[in-house]
Amino acid sequence: INLQNDRELTTLFEEYHFADIAEIIDDLTLDQATYLIKLLDSQRTSDILMELEEEVRERILDNLSAKEIAEEVEEMDSDDAADVISELPSNRVENVISQIEDEDRAKDIVELLSYEENSAGGLMAKELVRVRETWTVAGCVRKMRSQAKNVTRVHSVYVVDKHDKLIGRLSLKDLLTSDTATKISEIYIPKVDFVNVHTEAEEVARIMQKYDLEAIPVVDDLNRLVGRVTIDDILDFIRDEAEKDYQMAAGLSQDVEADDSILRHTRARLPWLVLGLLGGLGAAMIMGSFEDILENYTILFFFTPLIAAMAGNVGVQSSAIIVQGLANDDLKESLVNRLLKEMLLALLNGVILAILLLGFTYMWKGDFLTALAISLSLIIVIVVAGLVGTFVPLFLHKRDIDPAIATGPFITTSNDIFGILIYFYIAKMVLGI
Amino acid sequence: INLQNDRELTTLFEEYHFADIAEIIDDLTLDQATYLIKLLDSQRTSDILMELEEEVRERILDNLSAKEIAEEVEEMDSDDAADVISELPSNRVENVISQIEDEDRAKDIVELLSYEENSAGGLMAKELVRVRETWTVAGCVRKMRSQAKNVTRVHSVYVVDKHDKLIGRLSLKDLLTSDTATKISEIYIPKVDFVNVHTEAEEVARIMQKYDLEAIPVVDDLNRLVGRVTIDDILDFIRDEAEKDYQMAAGLSQDVEADDSILRHTRARLPWLVLGLLGGLGAAMIMGSFEDILENYTILFFFTPLIAAMAGNVGVQSSAIIVQGLANDDLKESLVNRLLKEMLLALLNGVILAILLLGFTYMWKGDFLTALAISLSLIIVIVVAGLVGTFVPLFLHKRDIDPAIATGPFITTSNDIFGILIYFYIAKMVLGI
Repeated sequence: INLQNDRELTTLFEEYHFADIAEIIDDLTLDQATYLIKLLDSQRTSDILMELEEEVRERILDNLSAKEIAEEVEEMDSDDAADVISELPSNRVENVISQIEDEDRAKDIVELLSYEENSAGGLMAKELVRVRETWTVAGCVRKMRSQAKNVTRVHSVYVVDKHDKLIGRLSLKDLLTSDTATKISEIYIPKVDFVNVHTEAEEVARIMQKYDLEAIPVVDDLNRLVGRVTIDDILDFIRDEAEKDYQMAAGLSQDVEADDSILRHTRARLPWLVLGLLGGLGAAMIMGSFEDILENYTILFFFTPLIAAMAGNVGVQSSAIIVQGLANDDLKESLVNRLLKEMLLALLNGVILAILLLGFTYMWKGDFLTALAISLSLIIVIVVAGLVGTFVPLFLHKRDIDPAIATGPFITTSNDIFGILIYFYIAKMVLGI
Repeated sequence: INLQNDRELTTLFEEYHFADIAEIIDDLTLDQATYLIKLLDSQRTSDILMELEEEVRERILDNLSAKEIAEEVEEMDSDDAADVISELPSNRVENVISQIEDEDRAKDIVELLSYEENSAGGLMAKELVRVRETWTVAGCVRKMRSQAKNVTRVHSVYVVDKHDKLIGRLSLKDLLTSDTATKISEIYIPKVDFVNVHTEAEEVARIMQKYDLEAIPVVDDLNRLVGRVTIDDILDFIRDEAEKDYQMAAGLSQDVEADDSILRHTRARLPWLVLGLLGGLGAAMIMGSFEDILENYTILFFFTPLIAAMAGNVGVQSSAIIVQGLANDDLKESLVNRLLKEMLLALLNGVILAILLLGFTYMWKGDFLTALAISLSLIIVIVVAGLVGTFVPLFLHKRDIDPAIATGPFITTSNDIFGILIYFYIAKMVLGI
């Protein structure tokens, strides 16, 4: 289709929703994509750009001049504009901003760029509808109309005092049903949830979900209304966080998608595999150090993969529960209680599994004492693995490290080594060697 | 505080947001909680009930009469009401519904209960603002006011024809700026996204996210407007799905939270652990069957935990990528291409890891041939594990089974066994025994 037939293309794409066009562009070559973006008018392309995959967008922007990017950015919501600009190489950022014609817009973007990415300031948009408490309903409706032009969705009308301090919100229903001469100060709702620009994104997500909010106003340290965070930003944030945790648990060290290049996949996968290799080498060396009992207690060595697997699985289960509890902010018991509970739980699971193992091993080899030694070791290994799996993520969280890192290969590998070491010691003890 | 001082309690709780009261009630005993719910008026308690943890809510509802539940349910949005009623024991459902005074409401709830939980029908609420195309703007605003009373958030106004068929939507902005005598048919937007009641929840979530919608209308098979799904329901759905995938990957077979009882934890954890145990026993038996080479090639046995761990890690990585790709609906390559890519990727990772392993093992034991045999086996094991990890979730998905089940212990366990078996065969081949 891409035989430079401009007019036909333009009319063809006019019919499509921008999200669909973005999907098409994701699959085009870079030249075709750039050509198409330059062809369509900037009001549409700014929407399309936001829907593109990050990598594709970056490459297309590389091909556009600072002026062209500035034009796109002017059509975007301020939060999207700031996101796009922050993705640019740092030497282009200033260039693009200086090309933005609307000075207020440029100022807004510079302000948004100054906040940390994972804070309310980093998530918020500047577009919102604000009214003064001293206005009348009639004046308010007039002003609102002009403000609403820049705001995709109104959600809420926020009320500020003369210093721009947030003092409440206005329900559209009250506005519609009130007499036009009524002062806003008489009808606004003084109770309003808000967050500070520096509030962490996680906390913002928690508050919005708890109180079922679709938008929340953001204030600066002087309580002045500076922006608002909407539910769709939070949705993206929550999804990204969940994906990150999931990938960590699966042993992927950076964000990677199925269709990414092999090189990117290798970068994401290899680090954890090397860690696993080191763990395996550690296990091999531990087994080597017990070589002297190999001849008489060969069977002990046959169970090392089982012990390693159980230690790993129990550790991952325990840590996943903690990581999820921390993410949802619903861990209420104390550390001691939690560890105690985990110990009881591991003991219960361990005893059940040990009985199964005992029965099987005795039937297989007919040596009860060895079977007992293996089974008892399994119980201890499971308890230790459960405690490690519970403690490590809590410890990391206390130290302000993302506890999700503790799930997956990290806990599996360390529990493999610990598990095998404990296993041989306990088994030797039970067997009296 | 709970010394039956009714009036003080009521005034005390009037100050709180219902989500906060719900948190307090979650921590109370059942008697205290029931007492409190009966004390506060049903407009507030219906909100509180929705915020409670499912288990707590179920126990409180057990203590209420059908009449009391019906009163609570009448205050809720229709989708929440249907959710609460569907949680009741089946013998109480009819009883409660017959106690609902508002007949339209009862009919709505019965209708909602008839849809599958994970479909647009199961997620939607009946409350929405609908206008006829034949109405004028003035008539429309009048009708909207009365409809809006029952709708917490307006989001969008949907336009229907005289058969109640969905034909478009109305922007509030156009409504505000149009002359009061204008007919709706002149100003409505005929392009509107919608879903059918039977559309799967996953698909609804995908559409709403793709087009950045905050609400989407739901139509029945005759295209009649029957409800709408809002973004907060989708947010809950997405979060639940992500949690489920995460828990599956971590080897938890049912939804479980950190503060649940030990018994519930055991039920969630034990099944996968038993599976892991069986896998370990399988591995032990495989090693047992190679016992004849134990004396001369002891070191081969020392590396079995390493082989099992690597096979497991690679399998989990590959399957996690596929599961995530399926969830986000962005797998575009063909199966053959995907498997080919995975093979190249595994080969690349495998060779790098094998070189590390070769160097280490040679330095440790000084036996180059054995070291080479172990390293070559590792490459084959990694490639097979990667292919299995890619193929299994795709296969399950084709069969309409949740592919997430393939991550975690399932893939780890099967790869452990396969891995060790392949390992010994290849090693024997290389060593010429």
